[in-house]
Amino acid sequence: MDPVRLRRAIRAGTFRDFTNLAAPGYVQANLVIVPDAWADDFEAYCRLNAQALPLLGRSRPGDPCLPDLAQDMDVRTDVGEYMVFRDGELVDTPRDIRNLWRGDLVAFALGCSFSFEAMLRAHGVRLRHLDEGTVSAMYVTDIDTLPAGPFGGKLVVSMRALRPADAIAATIISDRYPQFHGRPVSIGLPESIGIADLSRSYGGHGLTRLAPDELPVFWACGATGQIAARQARLPLCITHHKAHMLVTDVPLPTGTPS
Amino acid sequence: MDPVRLRRAIRAGTFRDFTNLAAPGYVQANLVIVPDAWADDFEAYCRLNAQALPLLGRSRPGDPCLPDLAQDMDVRTDVGEYMVFRDGELVDTPRDIRNLWRGDLVAFALGCSFSFEAMLRAHGVRLRHLDEGTVSAMYVTDIDTLPAGPFGGKLVVSMRALRPADAIAATIISDRYPQFHGRPVSIGLPESIGIADLSRSYGGHGLTRLAPDELPVFWACGATGQIAARQARLPLCITHHKAHMLVTDVPLPTGTPS
Repeated sequence: MDPVRLRRAIRAGTFRDFTNLAAPGYVQANLVIVPDAWADDFEAYCRLNAQALPLLGRSRPGDPCLPDLAQDMDVRTDVGEYMVFRDGELVDTPRDIRNLWRGDLVAFALGCSFSFEAMLRAHGVRLRHLDEGTVSAMYVTDIDTLPAGPFGGKLVVSMRALRPADAIAATIISDRYPQFHGRPVSIGLPESIGIADLSRSYGGHGLTRLAPDELPVFWACGATGQIAARQARLPLCITHHKAHMLVTDVPLPTGTPS
Repeated sequence: MDPVRLRRAIRAGTFRDFTNLAAPGYVQANLVIVPDAWADDFEAYCRLNAQALPLLGRSRPGDPCLPDLAQDMDVRTDVGEYMVFRDGELVDTPRDIRNLWRGDLVAFALGCSFSFEAMLRAHGVRLRHLDEGTVSAMYVTDIDTLPAGPFGGKLVVSMRALRPADAIAATIISDRYPQFHGRPVSIGLPESIGIADLSRSYGGHGLTRLAPDELPVFWACGATGQIAARQARLPLCITHHKAHMLVTDVPLPTGTPS
């Protein structure tokens, strides 16, 4: 499905799956919406922690559109499921946020690792979580991000279970795409970044069990922004939920990584 | 010490150490010498297995010089220790091979991982084996090389014990230098490439014990050529011994890997 039709189907409620395998060939993004009073601090936080939060777009206050990412995009309807936080507490997971929209809200679109998974596969890297119809698992690490204003907290990572040669290829290929988190932050030793138990993922979803011939490879994850926004205890903050991402019309970069 | 003085010291017998930390900033090479009758087959074998055997130079038959690598180089005297094989059996480890030289011998210089270690360190990668005054360990894997003529056999790898973030950086940096073996061939799971016991290295030297926060990272190694030359059971074959490499006047590439 092309991204225009996919967004229409999400808006209409006829597409309710995770987006990781939908609209292949197009950039997907994390979504974080904060009141304008905290927007500059949040942008500063993204720039300080760009491996986790590569900034793809920022809306004007009160404008739910991100025309640079897609002409018809409306961040109030184009994500399959949202999380609504008030004072840092999750209060709802709606499928539409038109009734919550205000003239002071600012939307941030942040790069997502789903965007490089297609490129990894195109270069022969086996992504077992995709073969098994699931997504990469996420974990909260013990690595501190660099704070800005009220925003701070631990780095969240996504994990892919890869065979050694694929881990090497994926490291080299992903490094070429800083806008999608770039190179991994860690590999092989979860406990070295504060992950005691791979079976307990952030959000409770995704592939968490390694085969004997696989290593866990960890990339910085845009969900870091959710943690930071909750920790900041903003009166209102809205993000995408789980693997329901913002799907853009921006084609993935083409290239010939070897 | 600059490479000209180092070669003189090796020739004179006043430098008897491994070369891995000597003449920093200059390319080092594996040495394999075979009779001319097998030289084309050996070159074909190197080209088929270029990650292990990146060809830096080949001498004319009977000529012990490799002027493209160093004006004054003499492969009969400029390596600290040699291995002499007859019909595939190691018969001697002399410090000079002038008395063995013949009009039909051809010398091959092949890229060596020592050449990228300086670059790894310059980018902040900790190489504990260097801190501890030793070299990287080598292992014979269960990976078959591509045969050419009588040459074939298993791939030999060198291993560096690296922390996860350093393993990632080293993977990306080394990939830029195919002439020095390029990217690693494996990481983290020695048994997946047929290494049952890290403590038993090829040649019995080098750092073999991992710290709890380290992963073993494996690069294709020029010693693959020694295995192949032995397996070919040539009437005569001469190589360098252990970490006594051919030191060239070729400066390491400069660059700004990030």
